[in-house]
Formats: sequence, structure tokens, C-alpha cells
Amino acid sequence: MQRGTNLGRLGDFNQAVIFESIRRAVDGVSRVELAGSTGLSPQTISNVVRRLLDEGLVREDRTIVSGPGKPRTVLELEANRMVAVGIHLDPGVITVVILNLRGEILHSRRLDIPAVENPEKTIETMALTVDEIIAESGVPRANVLGVGVVVPGPLDPERGVMIDPPLLDGWKDVDMVGPLHRLLKLDVVIEKDTIAASIAEQWKGNDAERDNFVTMYIGAGIGAGMVLNGEIHRGISNNAGEIGHFSTGVVAQECDICGRNDCLHASLAFNMIAQKARDRGLNLTVPDDGNAAERAAGMVELVRLAKAGNEAAVELIRECMGHVGQVAGQLCNTLDIGLVILAGPLWSEVGEWCLEDLRAIINDRFSSKNVHTIEVRSSTLGHEVGAIGGACAIMDASLSPKAAALLLR
Amino acid sequence: MQRGTNLGRLGDFNQAVIFESIRRAVDGVSRVELAGSTGLSPQTISNVVRRLLDEGLVREDRTIVSGPGKPRTVLELEANRMVAVGIHLDPGVITVVILNLRGEILHSRRLDIPAVENPEKTIETMALTVDEIIAESGVPRANVLGVGVVVPGPLDPERGVMIDPPLLDGWKDVDMVGPLHRLLKLDVVIEKDTIAASIAEQWKGNDAERDNFVTMYIGAGIGAGMVLNGEIHRGISNNAGEIGHFSTGVVAQECDICGRNDCLHASLAFNMIAQKARDRGLNLTVPDDGNAAERAAGMVELVRLAKAGNEAAVELIRECMGHVGQVAGQLCNTLDIGLVILAGPLWSEVGEWCLEDLRAIINDRFSSKNVHTIEVRSSTLGHEVGAIGGACAIMDASLSPKAAALLLR
Repeated sequence: MQRGTNLGRLGDFNQAVIFESIRRAVDGVSRVELAGSTGLSPQTISNVVRRLLDEGLVREDRTIVSGPGKPRTVLELEANRMVAVGIHLDPGVITVVILNLRGEILHSRRLDIPAVENPEKTIETMALTVDEIIAESGVPRANVLGVGVVVPGPLDPERGVMIDPPLLDGWKDVDMVGPLHRLLKLDVVIEKDTIAASIAEQWKGNDAERDNFVTMYIGAGIGAGMVLNGEIHRGISNNAGEIGHFSTGVVAQECDICGRNDCLHASLAFNMIAQKARDRGLNLTVPDDGNAAERAAGMVELVRLAKAGNEAAVELIRECMGHVGQVAGQLCNTLDIGLVILAGPLWSEVGEWCLEDLRAIINDRFSSKNVHTIEVRSSTLGHEVGAIGGACAIMDASLSPKAAALLLR
Repeated sequence: MQRGTNLGRLGDFNQAVIFESIRRAVDGVSRVELAGSTGLSPQTISNVVRRLLDEGLVREDRTIVSGPGKPRTVLELEANRMVAVGIHLDPGVITVVILNLRGEILHSRRLDIPAVENPEKTIETMALTVDEIIAESGVPRANVLGVGVVVPGPLDPERGVMIDPPLLDGWKDVDMVGPLHRLLKLDVVIEKDTIAASIAEQWKGNDAERDNFVTMYIGAGIGAGMVLNGEIHRGISNNAGEIGHFSTGVVAQECDICGRNDCLHASLAFNMIAQKARDRGLNLTVPDDGNAAERAAGMVELVRLAKAGNEAAVELIRECMGHVGQVAGQLCNTLDIGLVILAGPLWSEVGEWCLEDLRAIINDRFSSKNVHTIEVRSSTLGHEVGAIGGACAIMDASLSPKAAALLLR
């Protein structure tokens, strides 16, 4: 049912808008500039800024002279006043970061956890690491906005539970949010890895790019994250972006999950890649029927060969990533967006050889190419993109102005 | 850049919210019920309702007694106070409808235009038909909100131009909005057919279903329309929903548009369907290398055979529509929505044989089936769905409350 709005909602929203504008102004911003950029009255700006100064979120200790008239006071973000923590649980590795209000990484940790199949133990280790990283940052615990935990889907964010992640054995129906909240006494939210990557890109990107894009997240699995009309698209159960079983149009082998023989997941199955590698005279020592961690190790070996200048290895990697481009092109046709960002642990390793290919494939497959082209680029956030997204999700929920929040509940 | 909001915006928005609530209340609604459903104060409700009564958009000539206390006055929509016109230009037929504020069809026309390859002449005929249908409705011209023209994509809605519709010969770079506006002296907007079908479903659907769904529009071509988080998703150039060249996973024949051999368009190419029909002993008399209109006639013939009880014809139709289900399933995985509506001129004819199949295919292909199922149903709007969507687009733009409209420009 459609809801109305009132003055109380309006005040909170305008405060969020003004804080967001100050947060995004890298070189600071004056009250006059804020009035121009937000459309709000000088009186409203003045009242809200006073509140932000009182709360210590903003400081004003510089003036700038531009033309005649009295110098303008510059408002600047007190970037380390509040922080947020992000944890990314990947089948291969756990990454923990702590971000300040500007989205800058204050500290980060990378844990190679062999006990990843033991959820209880792993969650305890995660909590200990969060405690350590908060202590390291020197920020008082009261100023920690919360913890965003990033995991492979499917998940149920309302119950805080991982449902049945196909690449994480032993993590069926695991309550993630409950235990972490009990151990840490902090707000905890759970977010899907592919969606978290998009949140990270949205927070770190510049204005023109933030409103409509798709992130292709390429790690142990492959998924998409979408920002549409400026909002993260999560779907009705927070599981949007499941593109792993799209048909690529090229027969590969029978998929062990969906049963089709031409889906993206089957096209990137490591046993098939290993067979192709052998057929082309490449010698991969990793067993091709292993678990997720061993498959990941196999890809690392293939990448190592490519980095050493082996042409056949580079060629095989380009072939695999080409399938991702086909699917990304289909997403552009579906959503009519203008930007694809390629991200994730595997892409960080192979992007240098494949970016040009994917740019061509995606634009070739785009039906409305008479109307506009698609920009295709690599994430600059590296292997920490998921964890950064978790921390940004917490900040997004606490700080970002949302038009929908104007409506009465 | 993020914008703030103020009291002026707030008043317009709340008026739209209240009018929308009255518009959707089929049996009328009292002021007390409005306060409950919108969250607004009795004073705000009272002021806005007074304005709506003055403008003749609402009437109050009934009271209801429920329990003790004084009877409540029922507010009811003056449904025919304003109207909107929708025109749907399809390769085979032109449909024109005029809708009242409740979304009810007051009159409709169906034009079989042989001169569809002559844009200038066709647009003149469309304008004449709009004049006739407005006269027929008896509503004063000043109370016509505008005209929504619905066409196949790609299109440029800002210039009001059809760019290069693949199934409409002779309609490259045709200005549709300019001439219609000059001829009719009414507001004219242009909307893509697949998107218009979703707008129609959103306006005619009930509350629970209006926020997240995909419409698969199946006519001469196939496209998708999306409603996400309560808003029509148009994409950055208003060309969202181009799913015609998704890989289906089944090799068909080389596509005359994209060149792949397993895309949805190729799987539904009429020459191939005709060949399969012959292979199965069905005798279709329509040439299989004809233009769009002849191909459409061929499908009509196949449907006629199926209706006459020919099992092989029914089987072939189910096979074709199965490919649409595969692609719809991929869209559900991408977007994580819970409802697929099947619509469009061809689906109106064949839905009875295929709905159960598609329900099974879509749910089977859905990755998050542990989390929720997908409801799959046929549109109830028949062959007029596109034209209804055009009229609803005009009403949507003029009347619906949009949280984004709260922001200062």
C-alpha cells in the first residue's frame, strides 16, 4: 500500500543528503556550494551542518578565497569518526577490512582458513579477527557502525542464515548473523558476495557511474550484482544475480548442478579446463576432480603458467572468460545499462589478458548498439572487493539518503 | 548529485498518494481508512480530499454504517472525469483504446492496416482514429490526459523517434511523437511494447503483485518488461527487455539478426517452424520466406490447426513456447522476482496449451528454489495489453506518486 510522508521524515532525509554531499566532496565543500548541489535553503543547510559539527562528523578549520567577498569556510568530513567492518567468506579465503566514512581501508586481514568446513570454529575466528582489527584502528567500539558479512548465496538475510552455498561444503543452513552478533555485540548484516561487490563499486565510483551498472563477480563461482536507477537490486529474497547457469551457446559438458551442457558454470568447470590444458600440452599438477579449494588452486597454476609467458595458457584463459562476456552481453540487453565492471579474485588475476576481448564481445552482443555503447572495465578494488562491499553495506544502511525512507511506515 | 526535498514537494506527493488510494479502492474508501492506509494525519487527508472534490475527481454520495458511531462518508473515484488514449503499433495490427481513471476500457478499435509500411499515412490514420475514439467517449478533449504510443524497440523516447525496428520495414528513424502531437494537440509519449505490457499489468494487477515481476511479451517478436521494487525498469535508453537473442541451449538455425544458431529468435523463426510442421505431416499453406505479416499469418494457421484438435500442432506450439520458458527462468535467476506474467497477441492464442509447461520449466530453472517459488500466469488483458499499457503510461506519468518526485530539481 502506498504511504504518505511528513515533516519528520523530511528532516532526517535532508540531513542524510547533506552529510552524503560532504562525505563525497574530496576537497571539502562550502555551505553555499551545498545549497547549490542539494537545492536546499541556506537555513536548512545551516541547521543540519550545526548538528553534524556537534556530532563531530564534520569539521571546519579551513577557508578558501575565490573572487571578491569574504572567504568561504570549508566543511570537511571527519573521516575516521565512524568506521564499518566487512568480512568476506570465500571458499578459498576469508578477508576482513575496516573502512572509515570515506570508504578508505584503515586495516585489512587475509586468513587462509583450512577449517572452513567447520562453521562454528570459522565464525569464532572471524569474530576474533574483527576484535583485533577494531583495536588496531584505534577507533572506540561505540563508533563502529556494524559488521557486514559477505557470503556466497543463496541466503536468507532476514534470518541471517546461509541456505545451501554450492561451493562451501558443510555450510548448509548455518546461522551467521546470530553467533557473530552474540560474540561481537555489534550490528551484523549478511550480504551476498556478488551484490556486495556492486555496493563496493557504487560507493567507490564517481557520480556519473553510480546509477546503472552490472558487476560480474568472478571467483570460485560467478555471479552478477546490479545497481539500477541508483539502487542496489537485491531481488525479493536477496538472491538476485544468479547467472551461473545461463546458456552460453557453446556446448561444454554436463553441469553437475543444473544438468545442462552449455551453462556458464559447466563452461568454467575446472576438470574440463584441466582436460583442455592437457590436450594443448599444458601440464597442470592439480587433481581435476578435487574440491572447491583444489579447483581454485588449479586455476592459480594455470594463471602462473600464463604469467610466465605460456601462450597456450593465456589462450585457454581468454576462451573461458569469453563465456562470461557472452552472458554479460545478455544482461546488458535485458537491463539496458551502459557499464559493466569486472571484479572478483579470479578476474584480478586474469583481467589483463581478457579485458579487450570482453569489451568487444559485450558490445557485439548488445542489441541497442545503434543507441549507445557499453563501457567495460576492471574493478580497481582487487581481491578485497567483497569485504569492502560488506562494510559499505553497513554504511549504506546507516548513512545514505533513500527516497523510499521518506515514506511513513 | 543527490538532491534534498521541501514542503512544496511534500504536498504534491501526498495528494498523489491519497488520489491513488481512492483510485484503487473499488468499493470506495472513507477518510478514516485513508488515514490508516497512508499514515497521513486526518487534517492532511481532509485538505487534500476537499481539493479532489472541488476538481470533480472524487465524489461523496454514499455513507456506510459499520458498528456504533456515526456513518462514514464513502469517497469514490469519478472514474470518467479524465481519460487517456493508448495506441499500439504492431507489425500486424494497430490497436487504439481509451481508458478512464480506473483503467477501464471505454472504447477500443482494431485496424488492420495494409499500408503499415508507409509511416506518414499510418500516423495520419492513427490520429484520425484517436479523434474518433475521443468523440465516441463523450469526454471533453480538455479532460484527455494524453496519448501513449506503443511501438517495437529500439526507440529514442526523448526525441520521440523509432530507431530501427527489426520487424517493421520502412520505419527506420521515424518521428512518431512530433507528427502525432501536431495533429492531435495532445501530450504524446512513446513507449516500447514490452515495457508497456508491464505498465498495463502493474496498473491492472492487485497490490501484492505490483512490485516485482517480469512480463514476457510474445507477439511478432519477443521481449520482456520488468517491474522492480515497484518501478518500471526502462534502462538508460528506454530499451530494456531485449531478450530475443538469449541462448536457449538448443541449436535451431542461424539467426538472421544476431548470427548465432541457438537464440530465442532463431528458435521461433517461422520458416523453421513451418519446416518442422511439414516434417510432422502438418500442411501450412503460408509461404515460409514471407514478410512479418505473412509469418504472423503462418502462426495463426498453426494455431487454427491446434484449435481444431490436431495433436502435432499443439505439440509443436508447446515446443516453441518451451524456449520462452527457459529464458524466463534465466530472468528469474538474474532478478530474483516471484512472478512471471505471459502476455501478448501470440500468447493469447496459445497460452491454454503451454501455461503448465512454462510454470514447470521456469520453476525448474530457478536457482533459489529452496528459498521461494515463481508464480507463472497468463495476462488477462488479451491482445489489447500493449495499447492499455500506452494509456496507463500517460496516467502513470500524470497521476502516480513517485518517491523520486519528492526530490528538488
